[in-house]
Amino acid sequence: MISEVFITCALTGAGTAVERSPHVPVTPEQIAQSAIEAARAGAAVVHIHVRDPKTRRGTRDPAMYREVVQRIRESDVNPLINLTAGMGGDLVLGDPESPLPLNPAGTDMAGVRERLVHVEELRPEICTLDCGSMNWGAGSQYVMVNTAGTLRAMAARVKELGVRPELEVFDIGHLVLVRDLIEQGLIDNPALIQLCMGIRYGAPDDPTTLMALVHQLPPQAIYSAFSIGRMQLPYVALAPLVGANVRVGLEDNLYLSRGRLATNAELAQRAVEILERMGVRVMSPDEVRKKLALQVHV
Amino acid sequence: MISEVFITCALTGAGTAVERSPHVPVTPEQIAQSAIEAARAGAAVVHIHVRDPKTRRGTRDPAMYREVVQRIRESDVNPLINLTAGMGGDLVLGDPESPLPLNPAGTDMAGVRERLVHVEELRPEICTLDCGSMNWGAGSQYVMVNTAGTLRAMAARVKELGVRPELEVFDIGHLVLVRDLIEQGLIDNPALIQLCMGIRYGAPDDPTTLMALVHQLPPQAIYSAFSIGRMQLPYVALAPLVGANVRVGLEDNLYLSRGRLATNAELAQRAVEILERMGVRVMSPDEVRKKLALQVHV
Amino acid sequence: MISEVFITCALTGAGTAVERSPHVPVTPEQIAQSAIEAARAGAAVVHIHVRDPKTRRGTRDPAMYREVVQRIRESDVNPLINLTAGMGGDLVLGDPESPLPLNPAGTDMAGVRERLVHVEELRPEICTLDCGSMNWGAGSQYVMVNTAGTLRAMAARVKELGVRPELEVFDIGHLVLVRDLIEQGLIDNPALIQLCMGIRYGAPDDPTTLMALVHQLPPQAIYSAFSIGRMQLPYVALAPLVGANVRVGLEDNLYLSRGRLATNAELAQRAVEILERMGVRVMSPDEVRKKLALQVHV
Amino acid sequence: MISEVFITCALTGAGTAVERSPHVPVTPEQIAQSAIEAARAGAAVVHIHVRDPKTRRGTRDPAMYREVVQRIRESDVNPLINLTAGMGGDLVLGDPESPLPLNPAGTDMAGVRERLVHVEELRPEICTLDCGSMNWGAGSQYVMVNTAGTLRAMAARVKELGVRPELEVFDIGHLVLVRDLIEQGLIDNPALIQLCMGIRYGAPDDPTTLMALVHQLPPQAIYSAFSIGRMQLPYVALAPLVGANVRVGLEDNLYLSRGRLATNAELAQRAVEILERMGVRVMSPDEVRKKLALQVHV
Repeated sequence: MISEVFITCALTGAGTAVERSPHVPVTPEQIAQSAIEAARAGAAVVHIHVRDPKTRRGTRDPAMYREVVQRIRESDVNPLINLTAGMGGDLVLGDPESPLPLNPAGTDMAGVRERLVHVEELRPEICTLDCGSMNWGAGSQYVMVNTAGTLRAMAARVKELGVRPELEVFDIGHLVLVRDLIEQGLIDNPALIQLCMGIRYGAPDDPTTLMALVHQLPPQAIYSAFSIGRMQLPYVALAPLVGANVRVGLEDNLYLSRGRLATNAELAQRAVEILERMGVRVMSPDEVRKKLALQVHV
Repeated sequence: MISEVFITCALTGAGTAVERSPHVPVTPEQIAQSAIEAARAGAAVVHIHVRDPKTRRGTRDPAMYREVVQRIRESDVNPLINLTAGMGGDLVLGDPESPLPLNPAGTDMAGVRERLVHVEELRPEICTLDCGSMNWGAGSQYVMVNTAGTLRAMAARVKELGVRPELEVFDIGHLVLVRDLIEQGLIDNPALIQLCMGIRYGAPDDPTTLMALVHQLPPQAIYSAFSIGRMQLPYVALAPLVGANVRVGLEDNLYLSRGRLATNAELAQRAVEILERMGVRVMSPDEVRKKLALQVHV
Repeated sequence: MISEVFITCALTGAGTAVERSPHVPVTPEQIAQSAIEAARAGAAVVHIHVRDPKTRRGTRDPAMYREVVQRIRESDVNPLINLTAGMGGDLVLGDPESPLPLNPAGTDMAGVRERLVHVEELRPEICTLDCGSMNWGAGSQYVMVNTAGTLRAMAARVKELGVRPELEVFDIGHLVLVRDLIEQGLIDNPALIQLCMGIRYGAPDDPTTLMALVHQLPPQAIYSAFSIGRMQLPYVALAPLVGANVRVGLEDNLYLSRGRLATNAELAQRAVEILERMGVRVMSPDEVRKKLALQVHV
Repeated sequence: MISEVFITCALTGAGTAVERSPHVPVTPEQIAQSAIEAARAGAAVVHIHVRDPKTRRGTRDPAMYREVVQRIRESDVNPLINLTAGMGGDLVLGDPESPLPLNPAGTDMAGVRERLVHVEELRPEICTLDCGSMNWGAGSQYVMVNTAGTLRAMAARVKELGVRPELEVFDIGHLVLVRDLIEQGLIDNPALIQLCMGIRYGAPDDPTTLMALVHQLPPQAIYSAFSIGRMQLPYVALAPLVGANVRVGLEDNLYLSRGRLATNAELAQRAVEILERMGVRVMSPDEVRKKLALQVHV
């Protein structure tokens, strides 16, 4: 149990959620506005993807990131900015009888530099590294691909840029890779880790699996844990009990309660309400900065 | 704890072990001979890959499987034959700065029918399905790729062939996929599952992780658990304590003890010695057939 | 995870809490009033000890129980009444150099019939059985004593009376005794179990220990879990995530937040607030009766 | 996993095993002889109770301990001598309807000095402390009683005597008491702990419970784990996988295999065989002394 936690709000993701809720922000202006409102509601960290305003799906366009980040930095709130570097690891095979050639629709495999161009330009306090490859979602030919070699190169580059990587762990083997990156000197101590639970076909979100992940964490790690869909809010309560910080947001869950669509600010506020009623204090952005001993780049 | 177990011997695999031990069988004749000796030493199931006698690496050549299986079937032992269907899910990316195009050296992505052509012809009692995608091995650009869509198609095909699939689980999320396959009616009950521990970057082999996997198993599953390298023989002892059957063999471990290279028969015999000294009975092939209620194809 | 839970409010206990908070009810009238208010705030079950109004400590006086129960039954709320049968298992040894004779101050070892006289008379829907012996509290010569023989006799008597026993489990070995009572036919299925965590020197309240207890539960058990002191409210959130119902109340915790003394109603209301914000529905008394298929005695 | 372990042999205990096997040693001469043979077979530590040659049950008679210890010390083997200090914590209640007065038959509650008189005289390298109170055995009125106050006094006295206490843990709450003793400065670091599994009604011996205990251990603890009856030999294999040393012996288990009664030497030898076949080295007494940094008293 920890007595104070920080809340990350994952604002929009890159997926199809936008079709299921009008509250999922799409344009840079909408994403920035949602970030600002989530920060006012209690999120100390905002985790940011951007979307192409035309297709409304995720994009790696640096101009989009630039606009979002500038708008947040010019606002009257100062959340830690956490930019995804997960885009560019999408591989879609042909059908099961003809897996090759790859299916160009959906495949987006970028090189290390290209995946980090927005991080290089904008120097956020945090960017993510998705620490492995796995099937993602039922029934499809899609694989999230981040090889060990690519992750080592990305970690080295992020370190060079002076940005703190948040290591996204989707299954327990990904923690073995995290430990290897630390041993290889590619991640500074304490590592910042996000345990992403309940995503098909990564680690399920039952408490026994979560505890197995927690017992595999590297010493001194600062970590968060979340689950998706209807388990997002219960995980807000569970996280501090296992020593973890909290993540909410429309990337992972669209609902405040059954049938009631949420905004990011509502989810952040709900997290605050749950935590305070449990006796867990919610940290401010500057408290998180101090905790992470982050180098601030402005 | 279970009071009787069966031993699977994984004879050779497809990897580079052949360069590190003269006992790793390569030719069909060697592989069959090693299977026969392992069966005599106590293995009820032999798990078979084949190797190209020239390159000494794994191949999918049906003629090789045919020769191995015929030689075993003509022998005076009758182990259950378990043919890998894992070959054909190998994907190697270009380097981290240029992940595409794929690296043809090492990439072998086959369609479902092609991956099962030896199973279709030889109708072994068991064939494997590797239940997910993941990085495999440190530092490389290699990914083991088995999409959810491909696995559903493979499971359907294997069922059609009347062969019992052994579901290879390398991380805890793979068990979620196994459960989905069962719910979709693609796997007959009871499911036969192999928990493959300690392979980089799948589930590590600490007991807490193993217990998390065990608690995620589908009801009534018949399962085995093994780890690799120097943890292979300790896992022989651990397996029955968590309700699991046993796997040994040169695919996963080359040593009988520090510095002492093993044969498959020696590893099977060693497993028998450990199990019997713990009070665990080792099952014969026919007892395993009865337990699995396998349809025998000869 | 379960999507609906019931809340038990443990109103007063038998200990020294009364000296640390003015809100701990003492007289039968106070205890009944506190029960009624807790029920209005969301508690479906009220767990009742009584206190001697003079000494303000726990007593077994049936007249006290009678008054509390009558007042609740005559009120406009209808919580399930859960009477402790834990009193009468208190043993205090002499000092460490002279453990015998027993210290009469604090020793209260009653026979089975006597421990259940109030249960026999008042036929509550539920009474507790403390399922073992253990040290209770640091540094003292006190032992909570409930032998296996006594528990078998108590379970048989409670069954005869048509009352549902709630099996209080303070350490993991107590669950082994619970399973034995079930196997001996002394407890009707489904067993009603309370996992009491964090009491010195019973099971600590870390999540790994809790999961070990949960994995030892008998099949189909209906169970709750709570911890004490500042962990009471976090456990409200944790309980449904491990399939458990909830217990709050001044017997276990005096504070709503740091430095802010609580009433029973405030604790019950706080539990409701946490649960609803997590998406967990709180059950009414009649829903609990239906779930337990309790025989009602009025 | 640890790669080398020491074996403790628990030679005889105090219970009724003597009636079920002719190999359970009774007289000081027999016990010493069994210790010597167990040491020759691989036990680095011998855990010793003594029995009254007339009643054949456990006794606290210092003369018996003296004879056993002298005979071992004069032999050509030098195992670490571990004397029980568990005797003198036996409390038997009257029947369930009349728990008091205590039943003199079976009750043996001794003061701290008296429980340690043989330890004071003989200064073994190790003596045990049973770290709690609990029901022991099904259906009876017996309680093992070691209050928190008594344990603090015993720990202080044992420290004064310069003897290393082995902390016997029978349920998970006992580990909380162990941690308190360490925090109070009553136990020197590293603590020596024995996890005693499967004794009714202490912690059951399933691996999930064992892992919960292991996760509660104080940092740097040197610990062993065993279970009883038919689970003794499987636990020999399990122990090193969870970082634990090994205990066998007739106090806990009478059989080498189903229907085949064992001697202590046979059980020690069997443990060696299992461990060596798993690749785990068995430590000599002097290696254990070095590991424990024991002060030797001769």
